[in-house]
Amino acid sequence: MPIAENVKNSLAASSMIRKMFEEGLVFKKKHGSDNVFDFSLGNPDVEPPTSFKNILLKLANENEKGSHSYMPNAGYPHVREVLAKKISKEQGVNIDGSSVIMTAGAAGGLNTVFKAICNPGDEIIVTRPFFMEYRVYAANNQVKLIEVDAKDDFDLDLNAIKNALSGKTAAVLVNSPNNPTGKVYDACVLSDLSSLLTEYKEKTGRFPYLVSDEPYREIAYNIDVPPFLCCYSESIVVSSYSKNLSLPGERIGYIAVNPAIQSREDVINAFIYCARALGFVNAPALMQRIVAQLTEERVDVSVYAGRRDAFMKVLDNAGIEYAVPQGAFYLFCRVPPRKNGKIEHDSDFTEHLKNYLILGVGGSSFGKSGWVRFAYCVDKKIIQASEGAFKKAMESW
Amino acid sequence: MPIAENVKNSLAASSMIRKMFEEGLVFKKKHGSDNVFDFSLGNPDVEPPTSFKNILLKLANENEKGSHSYMPNAGYPHVREVLAKKISKEQGVNIDGSSVIMTAGAAGGLNTVFKAICNPGDEIIVTRPFFMEYRVYAANNQVKLIEVDAKDDFDLDLNAIKNALSGKTAAVLVNSPNNPTGKVYDACVLSDLSSLLTEYKEKTGRFPYLVSDEPYREIAYNIDVPPFLCCYSESIVVSSYSKNLSLPGERIGYIAVNPAIQSREDVINAFIYCARALGFVNAPALMQRIVAQLTEERVDVSVYAGRRDAFMKVLDNAGIEYAVPQGAFYLFCRVPPRKNGKIEHDSDFTEHLKNYLILGVGGSSFGKSGWVRFAYCVDKKIIQASEGAFKKAMESW
Repeated sequence: MPIAENVKNSLAASSMIRKMFEEGLVFKKKHGSDNVFDFSLGNPDVEPPTSFKNILLKLANENEKGSHSYMPNAGYPHVREVLAKKISKEQGVNIDGSSVIMTAGAAGGLNTVFKAICNPGDEIIVTRPFFMEYRVYAANNQVKLIEVDAKDDFDLDLNAIKNALSGKTAAVLVNSPNNPTGKVYDACVLSDLSSLLTEYKEKTGRFPYLVSDEPYREIAYNIDVPPFLCCYSESIVVSSYSKNLSLPGERIGYIAVNPAIQSREDVINAFIYCARALGFVNAPALMQRIVAQLTEERVDVSVYAGRRDAFMKVLDNAGIEYAVPQGAFYLFCRVPPRKNGKIEHDSDFTEHLKNYLILGVGGSSFGKSGWVRFAYCVDKKIIQASEGAFKKAMESW
Repeated sequence: MPIAENVKNSLAASSMIRKMFEEGLVFKKKHGSDNVFDFSLGNPDVEPPTSFKNILLKLANENEKGSHSYMPNAGYPHVREVLAKKISKEQGVNIDGSSVIMTAGAAGGLNTVFKAICNPGDEIIVTRPFFMEYRVYAANNQVKLIEVDAKDDFDLDLNAIKNALSGKTAAVLVNSPNNPTGKVYDACVLSDLSSLLTEYKEKTGRFPYLVSDEPYREIAYNIDVPPFLCCYSESIVVSSYSKNLSLPGERIGYIAVNPAIQSREDVINAFIYCARALGFVNAPALMQRIVAQLTEERVDVSVYAGRRDAFMKVLDNAGIEYAVPQGAFYLFCRVPPRKNGKIEHDSDFTEHLKNYLILGVGGSSFGKSGWVRFAYCVDKKIIQASEGAFKKAMESW
């Protein structure tokens, strides 16, 4: 029994995305970086804004006493206050620092939330396709992830969610802008979802939480990502600075709760406790102090916009269908039928693409087979250069 | 059901140490920092070495492209290699980077290890008194913590450990230098423990892991903390830079495994997977790169040594008994009997001390009632100034 049984099973089925990422590193070593079209991992390559470097230098120079010590588990009070102001503005609510908890990225935040709000056996409803680590986070807490399909246009299917609600529903989890589809849920569907959950509460007495995982909020194209917290009293936002400041390696994010949430203090204390219990203890100190000074800053989203347009052109020219992304940095594409009309599994297509040094992740890894995700966290030139490879791949498909 | 039942219960019994820490902040606001003798939290106040600042500045200036991006979940390969060299030297084994996994502090590392090696219902044996968060980390994984008492001199009681071994024993967890006693286990007792576990394996077929939580390794007084990994094949070290570089707020640490461990690759992959699954994803990027350049550096331990001596003098003069600490930065003291000879609970004593603005943590918070822990992470002057308060407290006890 060298390792736990459930871990043994999970290892076998371990993240295809990460596998592709590590395979990509090997490919690049062998064929040269510029010859591999690695669209596998959402690893933002747009550099953090210059202001990030400046603040980092400033803080490094100040070298304030105790600045790498423990602080209260929820984070520095002044950081929570500053973030509360920003969150209030973007979420259409009025919160103060006591409603914000600094976390080790959104992944840390989600694990914390799941542990805090779910009894073992509880259910969380999520819309397919979705970021598959949710399954792992649910399993950590003996929570059952109830997966419902999105509509054909990848919008939330409220009927499907309604039908999935049960006496064990602890929360509905949404992710907008969405990974992998790039879909942004509009204010209307969020409001309808809120009404649906409120009706459910009136009927059953159980008020499910509505949790929004939204690290891509600030990566959107010609569309306003509507405020979320203002939609529903039992709402919780989990976010990070991995995408908007390109700091995924630094693990810095936050949880914010609606000020009207039931038993607000208990809920917040539960988050603080669970973050500690899970071993996060606190979000990294230096990064907390940095992001507090960068609330008005973000990476240059126009770079992603330019790549998105270039990538859509490549796919158009290669004859591959996709959902036009409204946000995030992924293109979710339908696996084209073979020339002979045969419909193949997405893993056959991703394997086929590898022969042309194109790396993408099969939709099955997001609970949606027959699709493939390409992350455009790579130079526009590489995207443009991939056109030939895509065309050749399509010719021999 | 706003929060999970098990969390609700835990919140009520939440960490006394943290409670004291937050209470201390309130006390200081009210009475002034210099008038409160806050010995509650092990929050290192000795500043990181100057070389830390220099490396931080250097890296901030270099601003290398992609230096805040994701890296492989186990950490930067070059960082793991550099640490492996240092660990090999101090642990008496020869490991390379593949046996080192970067973690979000030792707390993150321990949660990762527990999840990776334990099936629900498994047992981990720990010696009382101990850092009580172990209970929480065990509970996260439905692991039963089997608590055995240390000997009177706080050394490991091998008979007690032997008697606690069962078919469900996944690991024996040791912590040296010890929090809260300051005890350092010598090479002899570690070797005997190893023999005991090897015999057990030969009889039962189950090879328990031996896990060493050792963030205080480099904080020791006139004593060599013996190498650990070389004692036993199924050994795992969990450590951090929270104490030796005074970076507890930055959450940076590592797991290192014995190169001869059974199913080595599975074990390491399980750690990498579990760190990701728990939402750590990877240890903070910038801090990884920093600690790799500081393997020869540490905080000025003589500062702690000076405080230790000063504190022992204060306690001597106040008539309070303690275990002489060989490492770490805590004094574990016996709750003195009342003048009338009555033996009180440690919480009565800590409450009594609060009247004299002295904050310590009752031994019950470490599974050892009748004792109290004082952390000497405070200025020597404050320690010396506390003598009057200690004496007054003793007079009225």
